[in-house]
Amino acid sequence: TKGKLLILPGDGIGIEVMREVRRVIDWLAKRRGIEFETEEALVGGSSIDAYGKPVTDETMKIALEADAVLLGAVGGPKWDSLPFEVKPERGLLRLRKDLGLFANLRPALCFDALVDASTLKPEIVRGLDIMIVRELTGGVYFGTPRGIETLADGSRRGVNTQVYTTEEIRRVARVAFDIAQKRNNKVTSSEKANVMESGILWREEVTFVHDQEFPGVELSHMYADNCAMQLVRNPKQFDVIVTDNLFGDLLSDAAAMLTGSLGMLPSASLGAADENGKRKAMYEPVHGSAPDIAGKDLANPIATILSFAMALRYSFDLGEEAGLIEKAVENVLAGGLRTGDIMQPGMAKVSTGVMGESIIRALDKL
Amino acid sequence: TKGKLLILPGDGIGIEVMREVRRVIDWLAKRRGIEFETEEALVGGSSIDAYGKPVTDETMKIALEADAVLLGAVGGPKWDSLPFEVKPERGLLRLRKDLGLFANLRPALCFDALVDASTLKPEIVRGLDIMIVRELTGGVYFGTPRGIETLADGSRRGVNTQVYTTEEIRRVARVAFDIAQKRNNKVTSSEKANVMESGILWREEVTFVHDQEFPGVELSHMYADNCAMQLVRNPKQFDVIVTDNLFGDLLSDAAAMLTGSLGMLPSASLGAADENGKRKAMYEPVHGSAPDIAGKDLANPIATILSFAMALRYSFDLGEEAGLIEKAVENVLAGGLRTGDIMQPGMAKVSTGVMGESIIRALDKL
Ligand SMILES: CC(C)[C@H](C(=O)O)[C@@H](O)C(=O)O
Ligand SMILES: CC(C)[C@H](C(=O)O)[C@@H](O)C(=O)O
Repeated sequence: TKGKLLILPGDGIGIEVMREVRRVIDWLAKRRGIEFETEEALVGGSSIDAYGKPVTDETMKIALEADAVLLGAVGGPKWDSLPFEVKPERGLLRLRKDLGLFANLRPALCFDALVDASTLKPEIVRGLDIMIVRELTGGVYFGTPRGIETLADGSRRGVNTQVYTTEEIRRVARVAFDIAQKRNNKVTSSEKANVMESGILWREEVTFVHDQEFPGVELSHMYADNCAMQLVRNPKQFDVIVTDNLFGDLLSDAAAMLTGSLGMLPSASLGAADENGKRKAMYEPVHGSAPDIAGKDLANPIATILSFAMALRYSFDLGEEAGLIEKAVENVLAGGLRTGDIMQPGMAKVSTGVMGESIIRALDKL
Repeated sequence: TKGKLLILPGDGIGIEVMREVRRVIDWLAKRRGIEFETEEALVGGSSIDAYGKPVTDETMKIALEADAVLLGAVGGPKWDSLPFEVKPERGLLRLRKDLGLFANLRPALCFDALVDASTLKPEIVRGLDIMIVRELTGGVYFGTPRGIETLADGSRRGVNTQVYTTEEIRRVARVAFDIAQKRNNKVTSSEKANVMESGILWREEVTFVHDQEFPGVELSHMYADNCAMQLVRNPKQFDVIVTDNLFGDLLSDAAAMLTGSLGMLPSASLGAADENGKRKAMYEPVHGSAPDIAGKDLANPIATILSFAMALRYSFDLGEEAGLIEKAVENVLAGGLRTGDIMQPGMAKVSTGVMGESIIRALDKL
């Protein structure tokens, strides 16, 4: 086989969109003789329901041995009131941390066929193609001390710690510069160096990596609040944005929403390269578990299918097959099929299952 | 006189927009017999240039005695490479902290005459009227420990601390619920309770204030990344958003940019009410110092003039006069005058000075 693939559907629509990815995997085996050793496991709320924790040690062991992890989505109101340490999200965070996936690549791409689905004016988003590189294993997500303490007078105090080291910043900066070189050669680094010392360090270390290793890439710095503004004002000014875990969380979601096609956007989270140049990797759609439409066969499976295509390209060196899948998606959209989230006048509204089936049929025709 | 007003033009366009506010102050004296005891002082870069620090103790003393502070904007590339502790922004942060201005009210209002200036589709932003209540004296902006340390191996570590207490959260929540009651009775509280304990505390304390004191207001909770998305997807779903200092920084800027009229948006920062119900207060435009257009008579003075109107209403109980100023601004816009930032086809492009003058003339006609 080509390698080991761990499939983690997770919760909500994660389960139904992953079903469609399964079809693509089967198609690759049947039609192109490309087989994977696949395993499936629970994560998030579904793992809590089965095992009392959002990810088990056993699942972590399989994840650590896999060549790539494919994740659907986690979370939902059912588990919202659980204590912090056993919430669905902790499963996702443990996967990121224990696999060392420090670089989260989140493209914000506006598909030509879907320009009108954006809430922004077509001229602002047509052709939009931003890559946000978000640091994923550091910052306030993992920093200590953290917690809630009760004071003598009965009032409470909640604490989290934002912390970054030289090395954490440099390695993610390298990923950003490297990607920029394959795109439009421009990196915008974003922080709040005007109010946070960790932002000053961020700015200095990114600049250091730039000057030492990537002097040919155009680098600029932008405060995160201004970046949030500029994404709305003129998103096409950006090529690659590199930022920390928390700012990246907000900025990449805002950027994704600009495109009007959240249900279309894949993402990759990468670890450090080993001696053979192989990186641990997890691929997942940018959208969440969408509890409101879960189980109704309404979800758009394309983001997860395109996440699988990213896995083929980056983790298994199957760029050709990745291209086929991307082309099939394009053809289905050009044919006028739309799930509800990207529905437009004059198009045909289809279910999750029909969208998946149609992509398989389009693959057959390529 | 009606009271003490401290004017702090600051840097960049702060200086030229404040000149236009001066005209409005003079107009009030001459035509309505309303006088203020005004003082003017330096803050930010201009104070650094004159005194070596972004705000002097003397200026702080005057600010503490003033009934209201009117601020232009601070910062600029000239002072960007200064050490953290003497940057222009520290002046602003000291004013906020030492005056105890814990509640920052930042409206995102889409002016009917300017709907087309937004990058969003008119139907998404027409009639938009959100009030963001941002906590302003706590969180990662002021938390300790903070700083950059050099480790034994020469690498560095940057740290900031996000910290909130029961009381800090409750008092700003009260401001938000109180404002919501005068608007559409809906509060959305935003944090990252799924990854940060300080966010859990935030959610619990906001809920407590709601249940105990404002059970009639509709309260919902939204993760900050989702909030950034929803602001782009469907901003009109919001009435009042209450959030912490850092999330508020990003979310309020994004929300302001949605309106397409950043140069129009005022803001107020309020402290606790004293025994007479008086609150310390600072008023400033939402926009920054815009170094790129500073000194060119291009800036839009309306946000700062409207900030002064807010001061009249909230700090001096001069609602009638505030209304006159707002009406004058409306009339000038209806007459087709625009500064560059809100310029549209068919309108007349005017300078900062001409815009200010025209507002005075419109006041004369009311
Ligand atoms: C589910 C949540 C923990 C997660 C995050 O905050 O990182 C999500 O918002 C994301 O962006 O992947
Ligand atoms: C100038 C800067 C310190 C400030 C902040 O981050 O609070 C500004 O962005 C604001 O929103 O008023």
